[in-house]
Amino acid sequence: MNHDILSEGRFLRLVRRGKWEFAQRRNASAVVGIVATTADGNILLIEQPRIPLGSSILELPAGLVGDDAGHEDEPIIAAAQRELEEETGYTASSWSVLTRGPTSAGLTDEIITLVRATDAIRTGAGGGVAGEQITVHSIPLVTAGAWLKERERDGQLIDPKIYAGLWFASRT
Amino acid sequence: MNHDILSEGRFLRLVRRGKWEFAQRRNASAVVGIVATTADGNILLIEQPRIPLGSSILELPAGLVGDDAGHEDEPIIAAAQRELEEETGYTASSWSVLTRGPTSAGLTDEIITLVRATDAIRTGAGGGVAGEQITVHSIPLVTAGAWLKERERDGQLIDPKIYAGLWFASRT
Repeated sequence: MNHDILSEGRFLRLVRRGKWEFAQRRNASAVVGIVATTADGNILLIEQPRIPLGSSILELPAGLVGDDAGHEDEPIIAAAQRELEEETGYTASSWSVLTRGPTSAGLTDEIITLVRATDAIRTGAGGGVAGEQITVHSIPLVTAGAWLKERERDGQLIDPKIYAGLWFASRT
Repeated sequence: MNHDILSEGRFLRLVRRGKWEFAQRRNASAVVGIVATTADGNILLIEQPRIPLGSSILELPAGLVGDDAGHEDEPIIAAAQRELEEETGYTASSWSVLTRGPTSAGLTDEIITLVRATDAIRTGAGGGVAGEQITVHSIPLVTAGAWLKERERDGQLIDPKIYAGLWFASRT
């Protein structure tokens, strides 16, 4: 099908295929999100300012795969381990892939892989790499629904993939 | 903060704010996704070809709010009712808002509102409006996890918001 590049930014491009327009990442091969729990039944969430939204967002720990020069072939699980440690300061020994799907199928070809990490333990400071301002939350799975509802009542925007993470964490 | 429009498509624009680039919808005020269940405990899912991904995607029923000329002020619930009926042929009498959050906070300012519809009943054909090719699935909540895993094993891409929907449906 007809495929035009309408605009080429540094990180994104705007593409038209037929009559459909969508955004495409230029600098990453994939995106990974992490459903990490501790041995005592907490899920790890992060909160960080997001420029497109103009506010802080509550999210699963997540990141780009293969976005560092020379590491374009980074395996998904390795990227997840790196991102979890950078963002939260936690490491985990047990990892598996949960699912793979599009984040906004009408607007972008971005696909996120959700991976599961269990028995996570705190081994470092977290908070992200240069320029990232990340707050870590370790929330009991059994009260996470109520906690999120309370945060939302206070105006907090919550990435819906957190609720997907809660669904998987309740089963695995 | 500095805000440049890098490109203006018909449906999307590519925006740069500071050093951050993101995609913005031009033709809709919001996006709504629908967690609809029937009285006998099935969840309604749709499957449709998505041009950005180049394949069919399994998703929650969803759509743009206020994307029809003259209806820019369409309320969220009204849009959800319209989309559920157009896409699935089902109508529901009980509606409520579940949550509101970004679909891909690093890449777009798009925010989806998830709404809950219960006791949905089939009243029409569904399948979408002109040009849409939508297949409807009515799947028992108790076996949805296994069904999705099987579909994924066959190579089906699944929007992770479906799993968020399963989490909400299991509680409400």
